[in-house]
Amino acid sequence: MTRQDIGATNLAAFVAKTEGRHSLFEEAIRDLPIPVCSVFLDKDGNIGPASFVETQTAFTCQEHGRIQEVFPRTIAKSRNIILEAKPDAKPPRAAGKRVAVLFSGGPAAGGHNVLAGLKAVLGNENTLLGIRKGPKGLINGDVFEIKNSDIQAIINTGGFNFLGTDRTKIKTPEQFERVKETVLKNRLDGLIIVGGDDSNTNAAFIAEYLEEQGITCSVIGIPKTIDGDMAAGNYLPISFGYDTATKVYSELTGNLAQDAASAVKYYHFVKLMGRTASKITLEVALQTKPAIALISEEIAEKNMSLEAIVDEIVRIIVLRRLKGINHGLVLVPEGLIEFIPEMRTLIQELNKILAEYERDIKDLPTLKNKQEFIYPHLSPQSAQLMASLPDEIEEMLILDRDEHGNVKVSQIETEKLLIEKIRYKMSEIKRHTERYFGDQEGKIPATEDQIEKFKAATFSTQSHFLGYEGRSGKPTLFDAAFTFALGLTAGSLVLAGKTGYMAAVTDFDKGGRVLALPLTGLIACEMRKGKEEMVINKSLVETSSPAFKVFAENREKWATDDFFSSPGPIQHWGPASKQLPMTVALNQGYADYRTFDLGEERKIRFD
Amino acid sequence: MTRQDIGATNLAAFVAKTEGRHSLFEEAIRDLPIPVCSVFLDKDGNIGPASFVETQTAFTCQEHGRIQEVFPRTIAKSRNIILEAKPDAKPPRAAGKRVAVLFSGGPAAGGHNVLAGLKAVLGNENTLLGIRKGPKGLINGDVFEIKNSDIQAIINTGGFNFLGTDRTKIKTPEQFERVKETVLKNRLDGLIIVGGDDSNTNAAFIAEYLEEQGITCSVIGIPKTIDGDMAAGNYLPISFGYDTATKVYSELTGNLAQDAASAVKYYHFVKLMGRTASKITLEVALQTKPAIALISEEIAEKNMSLEAIVDEIVRIIVLRRLKGINHGLVLVPEGLIEFIPEMRTLIQELNKILAEYERDIKDLPTLKNKQEFIYPHLSPQSAQLMASLPDEIEEMLILDRDEHGNVKVSQIETEKLLIEKIRYKMSEIKRHTERYFGDQEGKIPATEDQIEKFKAATFSTQSHFLGYEGRSGKPTLFDAAFTFALGLTAGSLVLAGKTGYMAAVTDFDKGGRVLALPLTGLIACEMRKGKEEMVINKSLVETSSPAFKVFAENREKWATDDFFSSPGPIQHWGPASKQLPMTVALNQGYADYRTFDLGEERKIRFD
Repeated sequence: MTRQDIGATNLAAFVAKTEGRHSLFEEAIRDLPIPVCSVFLDKDGNIGPASFVETQTAFTCQEHGRIQEVFPRTIAKSRNIILEAKPDAKPPRAAGKRVAVLFSGGPAAGGHNVLAGLKAVLGNENTLLGIRKGPKGLINGDVFEIKNSDIQAIINTGGFNFLGTDRTKIKTPEQFERVKETVLKNRLDGLIIVGGDDSNTNAAFIAEYLEEQGITCSVIGIPKTIDGDMAAGNYLPISFGYDTATKVYSELTGNLAQDAASAVKYYHFVKLMGRTASKITLEVALQTKPAIALISEEIAEKNMSLEAIVDEIVRIIVLRRLKGINHGLVLVPEGLIEFIPEMRTLIQELNKILAEYERDIKDLPTLKNKQEFIYPHLSPQSAQLMASLPDEIEEMLILDRDEHGNVKVSQIETEKLLIEKIRYKMSEIKRHTERYFGDQEGKIPATEDQIEKFKAATFSTQSHFLGYEGRSGKPTLFDAAFTFALGLTAGSLVLAGKTGYMAAVTDFDKGGRVLALPLTGLIACEMRKGKEEMVINKSLVETSSPAFKVFAENREKWATDDFFSSPGPIQHWGPASKQLPMTVALNQGYADYRTFDLGEERKIRFD
Repeated sequence: MTRQDIGATNLAAFVAKTEGRHSLFEEAIRDLPIPVCSVFLDKDGNIGPASFVETQTAFTCQEHGRIQEVFPRTIAKSRNIILEAKPDAKPPRAAGKRVAVLFSGGPAAGGHNVLAGLKAVLGNENTLLGIRKGPKGLINGDVFEIKNSDIQAIINTGGFNFLGTDRTKIKTPEQFERVKETVLKNRLDGLIIVGGDDSNTNAAFIAEYLEEQGITCSVIGIPKTIDGDMAAGNYLPISFGYDTATKVYSELTGNLAQDAASAVKYYHFVKLMGRTASKITLEVALQTKPAIALISEEIAEKNMSLEAIVDEIVRIIVLRRLKGINHGLVLVPEGLIEFIPEMRTLIQELNKILAEYERDIKDLPTLKNKQEFIYPHLSPQSAQLMASLPDEIEEMLILDRDEHGNVKVSQIETEKLLIEKIRYKMSEIKRHTERYFGDQEGKIPATEDQIEKFKAATFSTQSHFLGYEGRSGKPTLFDAAFTFALGLTAGSLVLAGKTGYMAAVTDFDKGGRVLALPLTGLIACEMRKGKEEMVINKSLVETSSPAFKVFAENREKWATDDFFSSPGPIQHWGPASKQLPMTVALNQGYADYRTFDLGEERKIRFD
């Protein structure tokens, strides 16, 4: 045999064996130590449940009366008071308890470590059960026992694949009835729901329902969402998955900034996941220093029109080109379109018309016919706006509707809409340079030579959407530690017989403070389409926040030259492996973002 | 001041200071040690030029006579003999030499370390010059001196942004004349061209031209391309940038596989960059174990039709669905379409028709008119194929043409073409289950229950294109070491007065073997459209190679269950940081892919 044959034979077998989550990386991260908050350690250093005491703080909400009516039993118990775990007086670990857990909504990094935290705190004296495929599995009773070996296989890995997930909303009496059946059939003492605002609202309703039915079962929510919109100030600075997702997007966005400056011919337009809040975009902007980053909340606050947004982007592209820079990075939040007031109005009007005249519009054969029907029903402002949109966008607004008959806002290719409008504007400036350049007020000073060069340059773009690759990223050390702590917290709450709380961890810079937030204190009562809706309000970017201010103070500098940075791929070892999101560190007033402290690191093994 | 104000003020300033490539990661990687091949170290361990001797091996090529006619002078000098660096008899470092370097084509990770290697071997006694914006800068004489502090700022960082790059081909006598002017004006003793097959062919022509003009200037090529198609067997297992790009794509693809298995409802279709070769797709497939990966070279070899490819994908999706799996990952190489023989024929016919009847077709107002004109000119087979394509693809084939009037093959959304054809086929199977399921030969055995479940499931897809985010990735430790070695090699060759070579490094598993490959030995003479073209043949996936065999032997298993792996984000520290591409380790017969050896690690600083 030649050297090639020998090597290839052995190595071939070895390469094949890395299948099924056994890459070198996956093998190595299972052995990474995980920090453990001190409240979960007994005096011998063993992990066990924390005990909770009431803090001085209770949530209040404006619609307290109405919330009180809907959740009488859980509020009577919790009085909306925040609980805190205390280091002393460890409770003995209960035995024989049965606790089930499910994932709800889109995946987020760290879900598997929630399970690891639960398993660690429940220990072998209690039983941890998994519910397959989210709320649907809870309704269908798709439950199985999670073994130590299962946890050993998934600890520190990404995704929700061990359980799967789904988006079923539990609303009807029949669904609640079936949840009860699953709880009773499996003799559950606890039910852990890992999810976002909707799922945690669901958890509150299930907690109340089970109380009402006289069933003793602790229902605890765990705050998950890559968007970062499930947060509660200093009590819960962020949900899990945000750190990993923003770091994956920052890696790629940093690479694209470097690509733009290397190939010196493209503007990379990057649309970033985040259905409502621009928190992801703000973090990625702080990490990568792009030429332009749009923040939806600011645009809504300033009441900016689509035209004004385009003008601002064009202003920056023109300034850069006058300096000889014809490339850059533009960040666009996925939810932008609904934050542009005039677009929001247009979409609302369209939804109303499409609902009212559904049959009429459906019967019209061509897009043109539908347009002829719809335009007279719009307000003049909305009609004018719609007519100014590119054809594909207009078609999408009229033809693509979700199952409730509404415009599919998240499908609208906002970045392409912007690109097309910018392109028009740029060619207009080229054709009429005298209107835009000059020494008069309101015009841009430029030499003849600069203007000639400006006219010679082309506007080339590449558009990207970053989404799915971030929500199933491998958890950062922070998300791995945070979720392990959330699992320990939720398990402790179940063992303490608490119900209707959300597990929370804060003070990431000094060992971690472990809290339980009464879900009813987070819920607000809203009127939506004339119907009362109980919702946990999404946490949005505040333009008065320190993180936004740092962005706002530096963006003009970043706009006018290549100041981009590349935060690089997520590191699990070495000096760059313990970074917090910059937005979190800034908004929480931490002294540094380069490291976090969630307790002493320990080797965690489940054999 | 509150705690929040204090923290935010200091931290805000700190965050702002990370701008301009000063992220925590970028600061840390500049200090990473770099392995140095022993041939570049003198007995005191200082870095210096290597000396080269002739090996026993000379390249031969079929068109030797014609190549000899075109490159008489460089071939007379090199006799196409491969040179090898030897550890003994270090040459003294020459002084006063002036060497310029440029990047050509798309960015690839490690370009900046080529500059670092050049600077290290030239030392302060010689001058390293940078050429801005690629071959265009060489023509325009856009040259500046590169200082130690410049290198210190860019060492180990990604992208080509320090110099920029461009795709100008140097072809006309005037262009060569202007290259000469730049060489003379800057008194260049050496010119280093970092690029792919075209750029290295260019390097060979410039070397010959300068010899002919009686100008003593060493022209050395450096093999760059993320596609991995610039390779020469055991002499050059791979070009630089491939390792980083495939690892970025493998990270994201592994995340998407995990996402598919988490959300349990999508097939993620991922198109991977790589204009011709499927080498990127093969590596990503070995790393991530997808349900399906298409390899263009195999499809061409097996003469597979579009229909046959779709049938094979559908077969796997059906098998998975019968097992209850309705999600997965499908990898599609960017260059696929031109490797499907019937598509290739159609495109060639279209190119011919579009060239011959350019005016006629241009004058026809509508797409329909153009179709009516074109169809009769196609062969019946091609006409039938074109008619079977989705409208958008047909429109793209007819309307979108590059500057040479050819179909823009790389723009065709192959993954969407496949998705649409698969969708048709899946709904056909749903409508006629009796044709596809049953106990008869050629049918798939399935129970009534399985068939009902099959019919109830939907086929949901998400399509992705991974490209730009990989070519400007941060160099892996391997690419950082490989490119530093290539820079040291190229600099040594210039100091030794060699011209018309490509720097090469091989034996990545045992300290690195440093070679110089005569460019004329790599060049072939081809007839393209009746015109003679000198080209370096692209290195493609060989279906007889060990790497392809490992893929082929395992893919059926990976197809029928969730065997995916996630290789995770690129690590620069820790146990997973020194991995070689699996394809390289397999094809070169190395014992392991988990580590490489390119010499002893050293702290490299330029102050």
